[in-house]
Amino acid sequence: MKKIKLGMIGGGIGAFIGDAHRRASRICNDFELVGGVFDVDYEKSKEFAKKEGIASERCYISVEAMVKGELARPEGERIEAVSIVTPNYLHFPFAKLLLENGFHVMCEKPMTMTVQEAEELERLVNTKKLTFALTHTYTGYPMVRQMREMIKSGILGTIQRIDAQYYQGWVNSIIHGADSRITGVWRFDPAQSGVSSCMGDIGVHAFNLIEYTTGLEIKQVLSDLNNIKEGFQLDLDGTVLLRFENPKLKGVIRSCQVATGEENNLTIAVYGSKASLKWGQENPNYLYLLSDTEPVKVLKPAHGYNSEFAEKSHTMPCGHPEGIYEAIANIYKGMAKSIRGEAFIPGEFPTVHDGVRGMKFIHAVVKSYKEGNVWISL
Amino acid sequence: MKKIKLGMIGGGIGAFIGDAHRRASRICNDFELVGGVFDVDYEKSKEFAKKEGIASERCYISVEAMVKGELARPEGERIEAVSIVTPNYLHFPFAKLLLENGFHVMCEKPMTMTVQEAEELERLVNTKKLTFALTHTYTGYPMVRQMREMIKSGILGTIQRIDAQYYQGWVNSIIHGADSRITGVWRFDPAQSGVSSCMGDIGVHAFNLIEYTTGLEIKQVLSDLNNIKEGFQLDLDGTVLLRFENPKLKGVIRSCQVATGEENNLTIAVYGSKASLKWGQENPNYLYLLSDTEPVKVLKPAHGYNSEFAEKSHTMPCGHPEGIYEAIANIYKGMAKSIRGEAFIPGEFPTVHDGVRGMKFIHAVVKSYKEGNVWISL
Amino acid sequence: MKKIKLGMIGGGIGAFIGDAHRRASRICNDFELVGGVFDVDYEKSKEFAKKEGIASERCYISVEAMVKGELARPEGERIEAVSIVTPNYLHFPFAKLLLENGFHVMCEKPMTMTVQEAEELERLVNTKKLTFALTHTYTGYPMVRQMREMIKSGILGTIQRIDAQYYQGWVNSIIHGADSRITGVWRFDPAQSGVSSCMGDIGVHAFNLIEYTTGLEIKQVLSDLNNIKEGFQLDLDGTVLLRFENPKLKGVIRSCQVATGEENNLTIAVYGSKASLKWGQENPNYLYLLSDTEPVKVLKPAHGYNSEFAEKSHTMPCGHPEGIYEAIANIYKGMAKSIRGEAFIPGEFPTVHDGVRGMKFIHAVVKSYKEGNVWISL
Amino acid sequence: MKKIKLGMIGGGIGAFIGDAHRRASRICNDFELVGGVFDVDYEKSKEFAKKEGIASERCYISVEAMVKGELARPEGERIEAVSIVTPNYLHFPFAKLLLENGFHVMCEKPMTMTVQEAEELERLVNTKKLTFALTHTYTGYPMVRQMREMIKSGILGTIQRIDAQYYQGWVNSIIHGADSRITGVWRFDPAQSGVSSCMGDIGVHAFNLIEYTTGLEIKQVLSDLNNIKEGFQLDLDGTVLLRFENPKLKGVIRSCQVATGEENNLTIAVYGSKASLKWGQENPNYLYLLSDTEPVKVLKPAHGYNSEFAEKSHTMPCGHPEGIYEAIANIYKGMAKSIRGEAFIPGEFPTVHDGVRGMKFIHAVVKSYKEGNVWISL
Repeated sequence: MKKIKLGMIGGGIGAFIGDAHRRASRICNDFELVGGVFDVDYEKSKEFAKKEGIASERCYISVEAMVKGELARPEGERIEAVSIVTPNYLHFPFAKLLLENGFHVMCEKPMTMTVQEAEELERLVNTKKLTFALTHTYTGYPMVRQMREMIKSGILGTIQRIDAQYYQGWVNSIIHGADSRITGVWRFDPAQSGVSSCMGDIGVHAFNLIEYTTGLEIKQVLSDLNNIKEGFQLDLDGTVLLRFENPKLKGVIRSCQVATGEENNLTIAVYGSKASLKWGQENPNYLYLLSDTEPVKVLKPAHGYNSEFAEKSHTMPCGHPEGIYEAIANIYKGMAKSIRGEAFIPGEFPTVHDGVRGMKFIHAVVKSYKEGNVWISL
Repeated sequence: MKKIKLGMIGGGIGAFIGDAHRRASRICNDFELVGGVFDVDYEKSKEFAKKEGIASERCYISVEAMVKGELARPEGERIEAVSIVTPNYLHFPFAKLLLENGFHVMCEKPMTMTVQEAEELERLVNTKKLTFALTHTYTGYPMVRQMREMIKSGILGTIQRIDAQYYQGWVNSIIHGADSRITGVWRFDPAQSGVSSCMGDIGVHAFNLIEYTTGLEIKQVLSDLNNIKEGFQLDLDGTVLLRFENPKLKGVIRSCQVATGEENNLTIAVYGSKASLKWGQENPNYLYLLSDTEPVKVLKPAHGYNSEFAEKSHTMPCGHPEGIYEAIANIYKGMAKSIRGEAFIPGEFPTVHDGVRGMKFIHAVVKSYKEGNVWISL
Repeated sequence: MKKIKLGMIGGGIGAFIGDAHRRASRICNDFELVGGVFDVDYEKSKEFAKKEGIASERCYISVEAMVKGELARPEGERIEAVSIVTPNYLHFPFAKLLLENGFHVMCEKPMTMTVQEAEELERLVNTKKLTFALTHTYTGYPMVRQMREMIKSGILGTIQRIDAQYYQGWVNSIIHGADSRITGVWRFDPAQSGVSSCMGDIGVHAFNLIEYTTGLEIKQVLSDLNNIKEGFQLDLDGTVLLRFENPKLKGVIRSCQVATGEENNLTIAVYGSKASLKWGQENPNYLYLLSDTEPVKVLKPAHGYNSEFAEKSHTMPCGHPEGIYEAIANIYKGMAKSIRGEAFIPGEFPTVHDGVRGMKFIHAVVKSYKEGNVWISL
Repeated sequence: MKKIKLGMIGGGIGAFIGDAHRRASRICNDFELVGGVFDVDYEKSKEFAKKEGIASERCYISVEAMVKGELARPEGERIEAVSIVTPNYLHFPFAKLLLENGFHVMCEKPMTMTVQEAEELERLVNTKKLTFALTHTYTGYPMVRQMREMIKSGILGTIQRIDAQYYQGWVNSIIHGADSRITGVWRFDPAQSGVSSCMGDIGVHAFNLIEYTTGLEIKQVLSDLNNIKEGFQLDLDGTVLLRFENPKLKGVIRSCQVATGEENNLTIAVYGSKASLKWGQENPNYLYLLSDTEPVKVLKPAHGYNSEFAEKSHTMPCGHPEGIYEAIANIYKGMAKSIRGEAFIPGEFPTVHDGVRGMKFIHAVVKSYKEGNVWISL
């Protein structure tokens, strides 16, 4: 099958997330990276393109130049989809420009800086009928998809409590190091990162995972945040109380970037009246089903008891662990199906609407804290 | 060594917690159960006493009768300490009566119905110079004690985040069963149980575990509670935001009695600027030490690397798991040392002051919720 | 109920296993320790008796004196059962003397030094119709009992492979220390310990666990042993190939006392044509049921899905971990039932026949190795 | 960098292992699949080539045709390396032909049918100075490489015991199904699979893992095998006793394809006089370091405490699990370095010599069993 021509903005030498996108796109085998703007420094961008084997004329000096250059090509040779892997504040302008010019977009999260920008992108995607995917990576894991399908099937009964956690420790050594270390990180600069560090970077993943797996919308949040160190401008830690449409369902998101020694400890537990499901990112191939009366059941990929969606998201025989690259590849695969007009399962990739939801969450959480820990509606 | 003569109030036939106390007292081998009031129904109480091999004349019809009867005996033959394992509302009147008459007390938690009662007991204990122990059972585990000692040693640096959880599922099948099932449980009757079910029964253990292991006091709470089912009078689920003296330290307690399929999932994680510690009750012999730069370390009992306090709290060689009865036995052992005037390590048993703290927590949490999720000082 | 009067041989000050027996006997609450010979050194024995609160006249200078002294008492006041917790070479003469004089016996394993001695004890027990229990401790765990019951029910289909492991590391630092350290350990002296260290001390537990859980007899063994250090007289490590009556069933026992860093890592896996069961001693409250088509099921104590035998072997609600003392207490409980003539479930305590089987195993394994790794029938 | 042109033999539609090779080659990004013989059925082969986007003229009817066709191309356009992913009996003739004609080879294991064939390939590789890699996949995992480096550094002291296991259950449902199911599997046909099923397919991985991580050679084996079902021609289960040059080091390999419910449970434990290391394939990002005196240490990828080799074998930040595709990609990466004449670390890919060792192991194990469980030298 003909590969979809892919462009990339950002993700040049040394950028781990750009490399992750490229690997994932190669794994799913539906894309071919043919051009992009890989670095704000054009020389570095060209260096990267050369190393990567990308034609020098498709290594552009700016996104505007890329749009122009690609549109000038015959239709079958043009870049069709573009991955945006820049710092947060650039997501919106680049995504907007690309969508306006007919390119499909794969965008890193958080999708934009403001809710308004997010909603503008959503309108644009809907108007243009383009495919827009957001890298809520963890939705690409087979057992997360299995969790979604099981909940959809009603196996949990009425959901009574939801508890999601995203703990990392990597900021700890930075925050306690010399100030220069902090200055060097774009994530800690509100102008580049947005109104939140912890909630914007990782808390929003926990938020998305809740809405993705349960199909429920979080309606209100009440948060307490912590910047840990005097003078640090953004949250590095926080807890968010959650309310849903059903007043008898409550929940919590806990998120921290200074949980010393934690690696990438994202977990979700959904407790229902009939049964419960628990999943954790660091051992992503295990899904735990709990009930009042049965032994705990441990579901794993590549078994007949899983849903079709989960099974299609894992290719190896059972016991051969797939990991995060395969999860991202599953999202690229879903995006490819959408671009090609093939049938796909809702949930095969996070959409621009998930991005809008995420921005509402981030801003509501920050507002709740700033206004004195009050309930804010999303 | 001569055994301490023990009495018991409550805990007759079919009462699991009374049996647990008796087993623990036998394991530590410092006590001898000689009498008590084992059931409100005198006939049942006598039946139990007979089965247990307790002299019939020391199976009393009431606590008042027991106090009178025992005080009438020569000093060396009297009951010296009494375990109170009744429903919550009886803790205070019985403890008060016993303390006023010179008996040491081992009391189940929550200690009383109100903060005022708790403070009255504290004054009484201090005035009478008696030993009063509260069964915050989990403080008896060797690795919880090791956690306390390690934190005291400063190994974690400045504590930045605390996260404790206590999830159980046993109420789930009751709440969704016939109403008669609910009616039969004294814990669900505010007159017998107090202002809270979930926070009073288990959330308070998480609270105690935080204060016990860190040596810090929780200063303020903001909670959201959930009674799950219309018309149910007490909370069965809740999340509590925590604030401490250090404004840069925040935390959370999550507690639920309808987390379907959860058994007794009490966990605590304390994240410091230098390192972190994590522990879970269901696998109590594992303590996890995390840091920025070292492999995760898994500490277990019966090793030279542990503190003296932890090592004294475990008797088997390494790899031979001890469990919850041994934890309770460790608390009885601490109480015995105190009664005998022997030296003991602070923390060998939870005190009446821990009981006061617990009552303040429970009432603050309920108040916070009732007043609209606002901060309440303890 | 009246307590059974218990005597003890060995187990004085500093003896961990004697303490374990006493704790277990107190937990089950059917026994009362009233006398014994606690140390070869009479002074030390008396010191222990005093500390333990045992009447000085029942602290005997020798087993012979104990037998004589107790038989001189009125029947209802006599020691009825005796726990033997001495080094191995003393098990046989003391057990024989006690049985011949009408005492029930709880004996540490390995039961004797030779197969002939073991068979002599078996004849004696059968003739005298006394209760003889052997401390294959691990058969007291609820989930081991559950495993036995499930296999008995046929749930596994035809058993195809059995794999048991017992790895410890404690001998490692001794063997690599000064020679004097080795000399001080009675287990390393063939005259006191018998023909084997590793297989006699722990391999035999793995052997017993296989026969206990499956109800099958091991018919032939082929072993390779390793004494690790030149000049060391006994095995510290070994692997044993197993054959059963069904020629299509094979298995293996692996055992090591110098598996550096291992604590008490006893595991068993039984693979059947329909399903499989796995259990490990260090987390004894988890039993894993595997099949071709279902999720892995994790069984835990205190659930309605367990057998009656398992449920009777655990007293706490689910999620409250019981440990090894409770396992030994379960064996004491079974012995008490037998002594009292109460109904008991076969498997409530290991019998003298299990002891004969164990001695056959140990000697066959050593013979197989000495004769050049050949098959030896048990 | 210019990609290495890759051919493939076997691995067409429905072949999971061919897909795995292609994914891995795309992840490492050093190869480009340009041609091959994908199926014995030429029509199916062409169908696959079309689907994969491979030029139809490079979809060959036979390996001979491929060799001829590719050699006819200009040097820079030729296939340089070929992955052989056929049933076992075809490995040798195809590898031989390819090596003789100057192609580098990536070969599935077991490498050949006989030891003689294996040795012939080794001579050929050495003479031709070509790169030959064997897919002992598990050596590509970062923590296996870390284990190798740590053992090389001497951290374990003298190795005392080695225990490796490879348990799968997938054959269980086949063996107990209709005979037709067995007939359909080429692995069960000695003419296609070789002298062994269980040992040849998976036992040999355990063997390789021991030699890879410890750097030691297994000198002698004594085995017991089990074909499970009357009339089944090959082993499906077995245990292998191991001897090494040091007579005080012994070990065992346990392997089974009918361990019902096991998925891909490959584990290795290496016990040394100073410390021990344990690893398991199903959770490949965890390496356990045990010692007499320290807490268990859990090493994970993407940390400064790892060796350079391990760190180069993992690209994501810590806590983002990579899986088996990345392990195979690491092996392809090593092969690419070798083909390009770049420096590489010994161990970056398994070599033809590992293949010779493996064939010696398989044949020695089968011989030991057939001759009555006797020691056979490799």
